[in-house]
Parts: sequence; C-alpha cells; structure tokens
Amino acid sequence: MQERIGVIDLGSNTTRLVVMGYTPHHSFRLLDEVRETVRLAEGVGDDGQLQPVPMARGIEAMKMFHSYCKSTGVTRIVPVATSATRDAANQSEFLGRVAQESGLKLRVLSTEEEAYYGYLGAVNALDLRDGFLIDIGGGSAEVTAIRGRGFVRSFSQPAGCVRFSERYVRSDPISNRDFKALQEAATNSFGALDWLTNHGGTTLAGIGGTIRTLAEIDQKLSGYPLDRVHGHTFSRARLDEIIELLRPTTLRQRADFPGLSRDRADLILAGAVILQQIMEHGRFGEITVSGQGLREGVFYEHFLVGEDPPLFSDMRGFSVQNLARLYNYEAIHSAKVRELSVSLFDQLRALHGYGDWERELLGYAAQLHDIGVAIGYYDHHKHGAYLVMNAALQGFSPREVVILALLVRYHRKGDVNADPYKKVLHPGDGERVARLAALLRLAEYLERSKSQVVQSLHVELGETVRVVTKTIGDATVEIWDANRRAGLFQKAFGKSIEIV
Amino acid sequence: MQERIGVIDLGSNTTRLVVMGYTPHHSFRLLDEVRETVRLAEGVGDDGQLQPVPMARGIEAMKMFHSYCKSTGVTRIVPVATSATRDAANQSEFLGRVAQESGLKLRVLSTEEEAYYGYLGAVNALDLRDGFLIDIGGGSAEVTAIRGRGFVRSFSQPAGCVRFSERYVRSDPISNRDFKALQEAATNSFGALDWLTNHGGTTLAGIGGTIRTLAEIDQKLSGYPLDRVHGHTFSRARLDEIIELLRPTTLRQRADFPGLSRDRADLILAGAVILQQIMEHGRFGEITVSGQGLREGVFYEHFLVGEDPPLFSDMRGFSVQNLARLYNYEAIHSAKVRELSVSLFDQLRALHGYGDWERELLGYAAQLHDIGVAIGYYDHHKHGAYLVMNAALQGFSPREVVILALLVRYHRKGDVNADPYKKVLHPGDGERVARLAALLRLAEYLERSKSQVVQSLHVELGETVRVVTKTIGDATVEIWDANRRAGLFQKAFGKSIEIV
Repeated sequence: MQERIGVIDLGSNTTRLVVMGYTPHHSFRLLDEVRETVRLAEGVGDDGQLQPVPMARGIEAMKMFHSYCKSTGVTRIVPVATSATRDAANQSEFLGRVAQESGLKLRVLSTEEEAYYGYLGAVNALDLRDGFLIDIGGGSAEVTAIRGRGFVRSFSQPAGCVRFSERYVRSDPISNRDFKALQEAATNSFGALDWLTNHGGTTLAGIGGTIRTLAEIDQKLSGYPLDRVHGHTFSRARLDEIIELLRPTTLRQRADFPGLSRDRADLILAGAVILQQIMEHGRFGEITVSGQGLREGVFYEHFLVGEDPPLFSDMRGFSVQNLARLYNYEAIHSAKVRELSVSLFDQLRALHGYGDWERELLGYAAQLHDIGVAIGYYDHHKHGAYLVMNAALQGFSPREVVILALLVRYHRKGDVNADPYKKVLHPGDGERVARLAALLRLAEYLERSKSQVVQSLHVELGETVRVVTKTIGDATVEIWDANRRAGLFQKAFGKSIEIV
Repeated sequence: MQERIGVIDLGSNTTRLVVMGYTPHHSFRLLDEVRETVRLAEGVGDDGQLQPVPMARGIEAMKMFHSYCKSTGVTRIVPVATSATRDAANQSEFLGRVAQESGLKLRVLSTEEEAYYGYLGAVNALDLRDGFLIDIGGGSAEVTAIRGRGFVRSFSQPAGCVRFSERYVRSDPISNRDFKALQEAATNSFGALDWLTNHGGTTLAGIGGTIRTLAEIDQKLSGYPLDRVHGHTFSRARLDEIIELLRPTTLRQRADFPGLSRDRADLILAGAVILQQIMEHGRFGEITVSGQGLREGVFYEHFLVGEDPPLFSDMRGFSVQNLARLYNYEAIHSAKVRELSVSLFDQLRALHGYGDWERELLGYAAQLHDIGVAIGYYDHHKHGAYLVMNAALQGFSPREVVILALLVRYHRKGDVNADPYKKVLHPGDGERVARLAALLRLAEYLERSKSQVVQSLHVELGETVRVVTKTIGDATVEIWDANRRAGLFQKAFGKSIEIV
C-alpha cells in the first residue's frame, strides 16, 4: 500500500478517525479506527453556543487523533466536522481553538456536502441504484435521493438523536407526553419532504450509528447467524417493535439491552423514532444498512481520484479482487480454477438450470477459494470461509456473502451443510451451494498441481456425465484426483460423472 | 520471505509435499501442502519387491510434486524417502525410475536419520524436554529417547500400519484370531526395547498420521472445543476404548467413523494396536501429539542453518514473534502495551498472587493483541483470537493457547466468557483470564494513541488501587479512557481502580 490517509469526522455525538492504507484505484484496507464519544452538541441551547466541557472533549479527541496519526505513519489527514460545528454560534472560536491546540484544521461540511459524502460511501458499498439514503446523526438527519447510482438531491433537518434526546427524553423512562412530543417533532421535521416516497422497487438504505445500532438490536432479537451488519435489512414492523420494547425501559435497563452499546443507551429511542417517522412518511417497509458512510465517502474521493463522481464501475468485481489481493492469492491458479469451473457450469446448464447470478458467484468463489492460506494452510477452506464472512465485501447481500463463504468452505472436501445460515439463505440455496461447490471442487482438483496442465474441457451429457479434458503435459494425477472427488457431484446432481 | 523450500516425504502409505516460505532464523510459514495416498508398500511380499502399480503411483506423485514446485516458485526441493523405499529389494530400480521420470533425486533416510528428523520436528514444536517420541508410519515404527531436549537414541521396527494391516487384518471385521496375532506381533516388536519406561515426569509424544488420527477420534468422542490437534493429549484408557470401538466394525462402517478419514479406515486398527503395545510396554498413561514431525525436522535444518542441533533456544518466544510478524504487528505499540501490562502485573502481585507463568502469557498476549487487524479492523479482537486459536503456535499446550486467545479476545471490551473452552481449561482459569485481561485492557487504553505518552506507571495499593502514570506530552484522553475501561478490573479483582 503506497499511501496512508486518516479521515476524521467530528459529529455531534461521536468522533471517529479511520486510517486507510491504499494504492489509488488498486487496493485498500481499513487499518485502524478510533472512536470517541465527545457529545459535542451536549447542552447547546437556543443561543446555539457549544458549551465549554463538550468543546474541551472535542479538542482533546482531536489532539489524540493527531498524535495517533503522527505515530502510525499517516501521511495525509482529512478532518471534517458536521452539524454540531456547522450550527454553532461560536463556530469560529471553536475552530480556532482546535487548530491552535491540536494542529488540525477542520473543514466544516455543508448539509449538502455531508449528504454527498454519505451517499458516496453507501453507493460504493451497497447494491443501491435507485432509492433513498437516510443518515441520522447526533445533530441532524439527511435524506438523499439516488437515481441510477447518481446523487439527485438531499434534504437536511436538525432532527438528530442528541438534539432530540435532550429536548424530548426528559424523564426516565420517557413519559407518554414526552414520547408523543418526540414523535410529533420527528413527523413535522419531514413533513415538507415531498419527494420521499416508495415507488416500489426503490431501496431505502441507512448509514450512521443510530441505524447501525437498530440493525444490531434486530439481529440479536432474531438470533441472526452472522457477525456483520453491513447489508443487513430490517423491517418497519421490527422497528416499531423495538420502539415498543425500548419505550418503557429506564436508562439503566437499557445498559443491558441486547445489541445496544452503553454510550447509545440514552439516544437510541429518539433515533429510532426519527427513523420511524421517516419510514412512515415515505411508506417504506424495510431498510438496508450500509456499514460505510461519510468517512468512507471522503476516502473514496482520494482512492478513486480522477473519477467524477468517484464511484466504482464494477463494485463487486473490484471488491472480490481487493480481498483476493489482500491475502496474496495466486492469480494464475485462481484464474484457471475460475475458467474451468465456469466452463463446467456453462456446459451443464441443461442439468442445473441456473443463470447468470449463480455463474457470477461461482466465478468469485473460484477467485477467493484459497485466501484462507493466509491464516494457515491446514483448514484453509475453513479460514477462507471465515475471511469471506468477515470481510467488508462491497455490493453483496448477506445471502450472497454466505453463499460465497460456503463455496470457499467446500471447495476441497466435505458434504455441504448450510443449516447454520438458514436464516440468511433462501429455500433451495443448500442445493445450489452443493451443486456449485461440486463444480468448483472438480475444477480445483483438475488444477491440483497448479500448473495449468488441464487447458480446457468438454462435457458430454449422457446417463453418466463425461468430462473430456484437453491437457498439455501429464495430467494423470489431476484426472485421478478429480474422479476421486466426484462424490459431491454425484450427491448434488444425482448423476455420476467421469473425467477422462 | 526470502526463500521457498519444498520438502517431500515419500512414505509407505502417503507422500506429502510441504512448501515453506522463510527467511532463515527470522520467520517462516507453511504455504502449501499436497498429500497423496500412494500405498507404496502395498503388496510387498517376502521377497521385498515394490510392486509395479504402487511404484507407478509413487512416480506419478513425484512428477506432480515436481511440477507443482516449478509452478509455485519453489527454489529448493528436498525429497526424502523412508521405510518402504529403504527396505525395497528393488530400491535402485525404483530410485532410478523416479529420477528419470520425475527429475527428483530421492534421498533414502536411514532408520536413525528418520528418527532424528522426526525428533527435530517434534522438539521444535512441543514443550518436550525429557521423554520419548513415537512415530508409527506405514512401514515402520520409531521410538526415540530424548533427554534435556537432546536426541539420545532411537529404535526402529518394521511395525508399520500398512505392513501390519496387510499381514493381520485379513477379514472384515477382523477375526478374534487375527486380532490376537496382531496384538502379539506388536508386543513382540518392542519386547527388546529395554530403555522405554515411564520414570514419572517423562513425556510420551507422538508424530505421524496414525497418532494424529487417533487424537482426532478422541477429540470427536469428547466433543473437544478446539479445531487443532497439535499439543493434544489423550489417555491410554481412551486408546483402549477406541480399539474396542473399532474392532467389531467393518471397513464400510469405519468410513463414517467420527474423526477418521476414509483413506486411513483400513489402517487405523493396526496402527492403534501398535501404539497400544508401545504404551503398554513402557507403562505410559497418556500421549501428546505433535502436528510437526519428519518434514518439519528436515525444514528446520535449513531454517536454523548453523545451529547444531537445529533447535530453537526460545521456542515459545520465537513462535509468538513469528506469528506477530506474519500479521504485521506494530512492534513499538505492542512492546509498550506489554511493558505497561507486565508492570501492572508485577506491582499487583500482592493482589493476584500469580507467578511467572501468568506473567509470561500476559506478555505474549500483549505482543499479539492487535494481530486480528490483518483480517479486519472491526472485531479485530475476535479475529485475533481466531488467529491465535488456529495458528501453529509452538511449545504451548492447548490450555495455554486458549488463555492467550481469550486474552486477545478481551483486550478491548466485553466481559470474559471462558465457558466454551471449559474442557481445555482448568478450574480458576476463567478468573485468571479475567484478571489478566483487565490488566491488558488498562495498558491498551493507556497506549490508546499509540504514541507512548504514558511512559511508566506506579501502583499504590489501598482501599482503591491507584495507578499514577508518568507521561510525556498530554495523556488526558488515555487516562480518561483507561478509567472508563476499568469495569473489568473491578469485577475481576473486586476492587476499584483509579488512574491518575
């Protein structure tokens, strides 16, 4: 990685530093993240003044971030500030003190810029072509319209979870009266928003800590089998249920609420109600979470330098390639396994009837099949599945991530067991994975010596499937091994196969 | 890694190629392993002739390994052969054909050399100072005496699992008569061995596929919570039980025996009985498995070039360092966290009463605490624990590996839960981990900005523990954060702590 950039985002509730290592247009990875709860907006009254204690906390965090960057070899720092700083009556005093005491020159984002960077982060991480993006921060909420992956317009309201909590959550648990006032304020905030409507086929996506936390609560409630929140979808009905669960609890009780971190325990109810009213206003039945947002959007401007807007043209392909590169995959071997398994797939279409979607996933799985070796050779199929499951793959749904991981898991041996992931998979996916894994496994063993001795293959469909290989050099071991590994094919397709 | 070596071991049952990347004396990793079941000794009769079909399988495998090495950038190949080739009446014909057809010149190891390399592999991987090492191969079994980590003497008998299976396992399931003959032959093989006795305090260790497989069966029977066999110990009583379970089964039934791979299903009973008789002869109550043996021993001669014998002087320290380096740990930050946590440990001895063993583990955990970032920053504590759990750490018992992994797991946040690993841990280990993790966590947050602002610390023991830090520069955030993370300390020690 040639460069190391630190992006700092000073919000109303938290501030974060993310450090990315990257080579522009080629590869990147998140190296570090530091998060501080600064509550910069705490106690801001009608006069709009940031208060001394919160300001001091913000400045301390900026000092720490700056020395962190210096100690860890960060060569470029991009510090941005959002709502709390933007709206502060004493903004210039605060910016001056930050610059003087920490050495960092904060760039204050306009509401439009804030929405734009959030959009860049989300559209580069989710399969989000047409729809709306919601960001509920501490001080404000942004709604952005997206069409054909393009930024259409945005709308910002000072309806943030810190701001609303201070104003409306004044008793513990919240009184009925306050709750109604909170709900009404949230409703009114978005009343003027006439272009937010679900046309059917429009995706609603969300970024930021509030929505991420609600997704985590949903996952805990449903016993979700994955340890990832990016790409997770939850329903409006579930959101209503969470609000009903949170409403009668005291702050103390919420400290142990599953999925809820302590430093959000006092803010989550207001945040949830704001989201509820946005969903109500636009008549949305569900929302999908992006783990990437504002900070990543700022980063992509540097990573995809020269592109306007800085969007990946092939996000899924890039993301798989990026992951493969991070773990030093063997490009030639993987390309051959991909070619052979896709060739099997194409020639067996009459047998499986799958389409382009499965073909694409099979190709990606072939690219990634050996990355687990970076953890350890033994059980590298399991390690590879772990890596796929835990990587920040961009543009894939959780279901697709699980299918990819299972294909990697079963590329060498074993009978496919998809049961632990039932909640994420669809009916038929177990068979789908078994069939695709059978093809991948044959291709892998035909490339056993990693020498591309099997150049291509021709499939003859009959009572028994016959695969005729075209080789250069001696492929005795490969063909022998592939035949020995044909058991999964037989089980998955209910047909025997013979490789010659 | 500067070099890439391929070690090939052609045995009576299987042949393997391992590829290691390494920089001599600095770091190494296993990059690849290819295993073929060649059954080279199959059908060898009283005339000692290797048979044509097994020879052809052996030659095919050597050809494949050679082209594998060429395709994957291996610069040095060390091919060795053991019992089947050593004892073959037509050895020179076979070696000539291997050389001509595959281009590999096999080095035939003497029984003494075979035992020596197995010893090197095991003593460099296990905490094995005084004791005996058993290797049950396809064609022969070796027993080696070890004193003060030195090779004392070895004993070899043509009591291999392929050889004995062919001779005694002639019905399916085995007849009582054959079973008795098998047991008797095994007993007689080691009758002359007068120096193999358990003096108490002597360790019995084992290498090779037979013993590894028996360990895997033991793990399946007991619901062992880890996915690693290196360092695992099982008892003589359990071995007897496994033999009783295997004895009445047919080959077909054994194909589904938990922990038993199919290509060992026909050999395992003979192998188990050979081990049983060795343990009986020496009166050993248990045996510990080494995942490293002959091939790794050959490798260490190259890795530790110049040392005679090529043994690590500080195996545990090296192994932790090697792991840390593989995942690009931040040396300065980790060293500081180590220094601060060990300093806390030393000054709190009156409170915890732990000794040098815990101190050493705490130091290693500090070195490894951030390696999970190589998988992904988010949840890097979980990824780090996964890496420790799955790494080939040398010289640590499974219990120690779990303690290290849990310390990495809880270095940032969360309440310690050691329950899933109860079977590997001892009573009190849960509290032990919680206390050590509490110290590691404080040290980590005092090094939050990775800038070494907290230089050292002084502990004052009182009603509340007071930690006085000596800083250079501003450590406001560090001290504030460390105090916020003191909850685990309070729970684990039942005392509050204040950092100033």
